[in-house]
Amino acid sequence: MPAKYSKIGSIQQESDIARLMADALERPDILNLAAGFTDNASLPLNEVLSIANDLARENGGDRSILQYGTNQGRSGLREILSKRIEKADLKPEESYSASNVFIANGSQQILYLAVQTLCNPGDIILVEQPTYFVFLEVLRGLGVTPMPLPMMDDGDVDVDELRMLLDKLKDSGEIEKVKAVYLVSYYANPSGHSISVNAKKGIGHVLNEANAGIAVIEDAAYRELHFQAPNEVSSCLAIEDYENSPVLYTSTLTKPFASGLKVGYGYCSDRDWLQRMLSIKGQQDFGTSNFNQAILERGLEDGIFDVHLLSLRKNYHLKMKCLHEALGGELGALGWTWAEPDGGLYIWARSPNGMDTGFDSNFHRDCIKNGVMYVPGDLCFSLGGPSDRVRLSFGVLDLDEIEEAAYRFLEVAKRITL
Amino acid sequence: MPAKYSKIGSIQQESDIARLMADALERPDILNLAAGFTDNASLPLNEVLSIANDLARENGGDRSILQYGTNQGRSGLREILSKRIEKADLKPEESYSASNVFIANGSQQILYLAVQTLCNPGDIILVEQPTYFVFLEVLRGLGVTPMPLPMMDDGDVDVDELRMLLDKLKDSGEIEKVKAVYLVSYYANPSGHSISVNAKKGIGHVLNEANAGIAVIEDAAYRELHFQAPNEVSSCLAIEDYENSPVLYTSTLTKPFASGLKVGYGYCSDRDWLQRMLSIKGQQDFGTSNFNQAILERGLEDGIFDVHLLSLRKNYHLKMKCLHEALGGELGALGWTWAEPDGGLYIWARSPNGMDTGFDSNFHRDCIKNGVMYVPGDLCFSLGGPSDRVRLSFGVLDLDEIEEAAYRFLEVAKRITL
Repeated sequence: MPAKYSKIGSIQQESDIARLMADALERPDILNLAAGFTDNASLPLNEVLSIANDLARENGGDRSILQYGTNQGRSGLREILSKRIEKADLKPEESYSASNVFIANGSQQILYLAVQTLCNPGDIILVEQPTYFVFLEVLRGLGVTPMPLPMMDDGDVDVDELRMLLDKLKDSGEIEKVKAVYLVSYYANPSGHSISVNAKKGIGHVLNEANAGIAVIEDAAYRELHFQAPNEVSSCLAIEDYENSPVLYTSTLTKPFASGLKVGYGYCSDRDWLQRMLSIKGQQDFGTSNFNQAILERGLEDGIFDVHLLSLRKNYHLKMKCLHEALGGELGALGWTWAEPDGGLYIWARSPNGMDTGFDSNFHRDCIKNGVMYVPGDLCFSLGGPSDRVRLSFGVLDLDEIEEAAYRFLEVAKRITL
Repeated sequence: MPAKYSKIGSIQQESDIARLMADALERPDILNLAAGFTDNASLPLNEVLSIANDLARENGGDRSILQYGTNQGRSGLREILSKRIEKADLKPEESYSASNVFIANGSQQILYLAVQTLCNPGDIILVEQPTYFVFLEVLRGLGVTPMPLPMMDDGDVDVDELRMLLDKLKDSGEIEKVKAVYLVSYYANPSGHSISVNAKKGIGHVLNEANAGIAVIEDAAYRELHFQAPNEVSSCLAIEDYENSPVLYTSTLTKPFASGLKVGYGYCSDRDWLQRMLSIKGQQDFGTSNFNQAILERGLEDGIFDVHLLSLRKNYHLKMKCLHEALGGELGALGWTWAEPDGGLYIWARSPNGMDTGFDSNFHRDCIKNGVMYVPGDLCFSLGGPSDRVRLSFGVLDLDEIEEAAYRFLEVAKRITL
């Protein structure tokens, strides 16, 4: 295209996801511990069909599920979702309102709309280290700077350091550019970490003290994918320290059920912000597939969704255990470390002695050569972060494949040491 | 929210669609000639279920249709769509490539991505008069200026005037800001007009002469909704005069089949532009519902889509005739004028003597009071356009309702004259 089209955000570096996907496509023999895909064998095809058939049979077949829906999303579904967050947060009924909920094409679209409505190019969003790497791509695309949150060794934000950081930003005047804090709060992608109640309260408290109008984007995409008891920490919506902060809580009906349906949701405590996001959604697509929303609404209503989710939790627990044990003693003996996660889809491991496992490292190249793919951890840090981490997903492979993938990974780990 | 959040494009005026929808919701007794919704009674619920059941039965139930898909969209579907455009353009096989096709959440998302990748705030896009009003909202949201194309009385762009306009823009240096021409080329929303072959060639010729790197966005959303023979004019993709212009052709599988599935597609002749749109789509949702794509792919493959489309064409033809005749002689005698469209979902009528039918006019208010809603034509013009037009949609109402709606409209037209 002509040179005049070069513009902010348009000269994109090739996206990291695109590079990983290209690797995967070129070598179909590669076992994929990289993709955040969901378990294939348990995808609820019969359940979805049975719901769709039910919907079609009733009322002589209500065809309107194939009609356009509204921009904000089906009111019945929004009602169910506000109650669902209420329940997860142990709040009394009617604490949350369906009018604050909106539906989107996966929670990804909500993250995009959030940044698009909050930020101008040059603005800043504070992010955990590590953080969800597609969110970093969103920021890059919109010309927004990700600023690292100070972290503690246990994976929580260092609240005291955060206070000092905000003070420093106030002194320099930069605070005006800081538009939000982005938190991945349950079984995070990539770290598997869940934010502790103290850290969560502390962040809210410090933001309130700073009184700088910094919004909070809480990404709870994996909240429902706990392996045993749910994490008992409330969302920011239910924590008093956030009362004066605009909070956007996002999650998805995709990963806990059927990713191919691509439906996510947001709960926004700030009506003005919500309206801005809806206004742009109106321009981007004026509403998410009404058919898919109707299927999920019914699945949530009649319990099919939750029955499936129960089995999915057990399934992912099993798969996590399988990967964890297959790497097990041997990788540990080589000096690799990782924590066993309580939920989510990922094991986040650290190489011994800071050995480079980044995109262009020998280790990464050798893994690809040896037929196993992972997400290089450096993609998940905002600014020249450490490149000695790997994200290993146990979502899409079956148990035999996970064992084989772990074996291939181990082979490389034994060969390449610092 | 705090004042620091006020930013370009964020202080949105309440969207026109939102106002119309609010009117509709507050008064469910209103007959809606405004909504561009599709015919409810003929929505192919049984067809969609039968396709989904087929997909599930085969290969022991291929669950992967419920897995995430790729960002660009299913390759099988893209293959079918490139051939489909080929056929409509009467081009030999393999003239078009599936690798230039991408799938989105309705063609609306493609329009949004097109503008987002081409324009900075302050840039200009040339638009027909009238034009698709949600496109004008996209431009407003992204801070882009819609500049009116010079039009002839027959609804085509005035090519000679366009040449002069481009010359003037070159002289003033403004041409650098002109990033695209937006054309709604078949049975346009709102006018029902299809661009003639001469005008289409002429526009391409003048753009080529100008050599200013102006891209072409051709919105063919209604192309398949012809009532009898298809319009024989090729898309810009097939017209030589556009060979040096980046062309994005967009259409939808939504309106000609099941709007609730929300799947549109684009064909982009320029690989760099395509990559930029895909890069941003990767950030917005990294792919459109794979399940819905799989249903449409199969429906197109096994002919269910086209069998349904045949009956839909007849159905809309009937509904158009019904509205046309119900307004008929009486409205004509009052001095209103309109052309009977050959396709699409709209009758575009002009009031006598320039009488105001705009959003805040007495005529509009009286229609709402009298239980009938239309889209005020002024929404479809870029700059203080005439407000003596109305867009009447025959998409969603059944024949009885159309007659009653026309009757209510007539009542007001008889009462309010200039």
